[in-house]
Amino acid sequence: MAAAVCLVSGGLDSCVAAAVAARDYPELAFLHVSYGQRTEARERRAFEAVADHYGVSKRLRLELPLLARIGGSALTDPSLAVPEGPPGEGIPITYVPFRNANLLAMAVSWAEAIGARGVFIGANELDSSGYPDCRRSFLDAFQRVIDEGTRPGSGIRLVAPLIELDKAGIVRLGVKLSAPLHLTWSCYQAEEVACGRCESCILRRRGFAAAGLKDPLPYASGAL
Amino acid sequence: MAAAVCLVSGGLDSCVAAAVAARDYPELAFLHVSYGQRTEARERRAFEAVADHYGVSKRLRLELPLLARIGGSALTDPSLAVPEGPPGEGIPITYVPFRNANLLAMAVSWAEAIGARGVFIGANELDSSGYPDCRRSFLDAFQRVIDEGTRPGSGIRLVAPLIELDKAGIVRLGVKLSAPLHLTWSCYQAEEVACGRCESCILRRRGFAAAGLKDPLPYASGAL
Repeated sequence: MAAAVCLVSGGLDSCVAAAVAARDYPELAFLHVSYGQRTEARERRAFEAVADHYGVSKRLRLELPLLARIGGSALTDPSLAVPEGPPGEGIPITYVPFRNANLLAMAVSWAEAIGARGVFIGANELDSSGYPDCRRSFLDAFQRVIDEGTRPGSGIRLVAPLIELDKAGIVRLGVKLSAPLHLTWSCYQAEEVACGRCESCILRRRGFAAAGLKDPLPYASGAL
Repeated sequence: MAAAVCLVSGGLDSCVAAAVAARDYPELAFLHVSYGQRTEARERRAFEAVADHYGVSKRLRLELPLLARIGGSALTDPSLAVPEGPPGEGIPITYVPFRNANLLAMAVSWAEAIGARGVFIGANELDSSGYPDCRRSFLDAFQRVIDEGTRPGSGIRLVAPLIELDKAGIVRLGVKLSAPLHLTWSCYQAEEVACGRCESCILRRRGFAAAGLKDPLPYASGAL
């Protein structure tokens, strides 16, 4: 069985997705994409730490300046504030237009070039804050693009092992697979101590709480 | 009616696709992507010239180092020779894995950010040398990814006006729409005078010959 390319941001979800890939594939290749997100230096450190943990030698670190240049997202635009509190209704301001299509296209190009058969992404529908490119229907459509747009016989399968899990389920799965959750970084806002208040921190902390487990990360803000 | 984002390489096909967009949309936005192709400086000059011709002020020039870093294509890997002569059977060595998915993902992100309704690509199935990501079925699948992966109501339509044309048909359409074909660049190999012998030059020259029209570009090699 061939290798799997894992999109690894350094966050909780992609770490657990990589743990599933490590269980199911004999070799992993880790892809990290910096696209101008506020906390990218910290995420990148988490990426390297998770890659070290799994002994991954095939690592590709890419820049995708597009998403910061087109603006419009609080995740990449310093003039927009990262919202605090739990996610509201609708598509939040941290949405980066069509981000996952860009990340998946890069991962599939690499997979085709190295003959990998799996492409793993940590997308999940329930706790994805309403981002349209985190839905099952989007990923199903992308599988079809892979089937049509790669060499015949490339046989690349897009795997989103967390797609139906909520954050508590992701935490539980990560713990079950001994994923190095202590090495991950989720905060959208800070790089030293996680703020504990941005929507990504809140989703994460609620997930650990609902799973009845202690989050190994310290937070600047004590109360959930 | 809103703007259209055009993927413009600087080559013949994307110039004619942009000419169709100029006919059908009140405003154009031109996207050029350098991905390490051998002749990218020359292509980029052609891109700027075509953009000037159409008075396009919204121009985005991006780098996508991924495709050169993963290698495996004569188009981006200096250690592989660009083949001469007409294309053979199967997928040629100039194929860049899943290239068009990467280009389209970037174009759609930009389109979503600026509220454009069209995304134009010069892909064509007949003369595309067997690249899987130039086929109608690939583009249809990508439209579905756009529908699923962008904000509800974004209404972005992927338009490939050349998809069913052969090179002669593309040349004829370009002439009919007064596309600035003299400003374009197709050669895969050279940046000063087009070689006339690589598969891209040969497809282009045959197209002009079959259309009964004179190619405005000079070639280093006289005989077709």
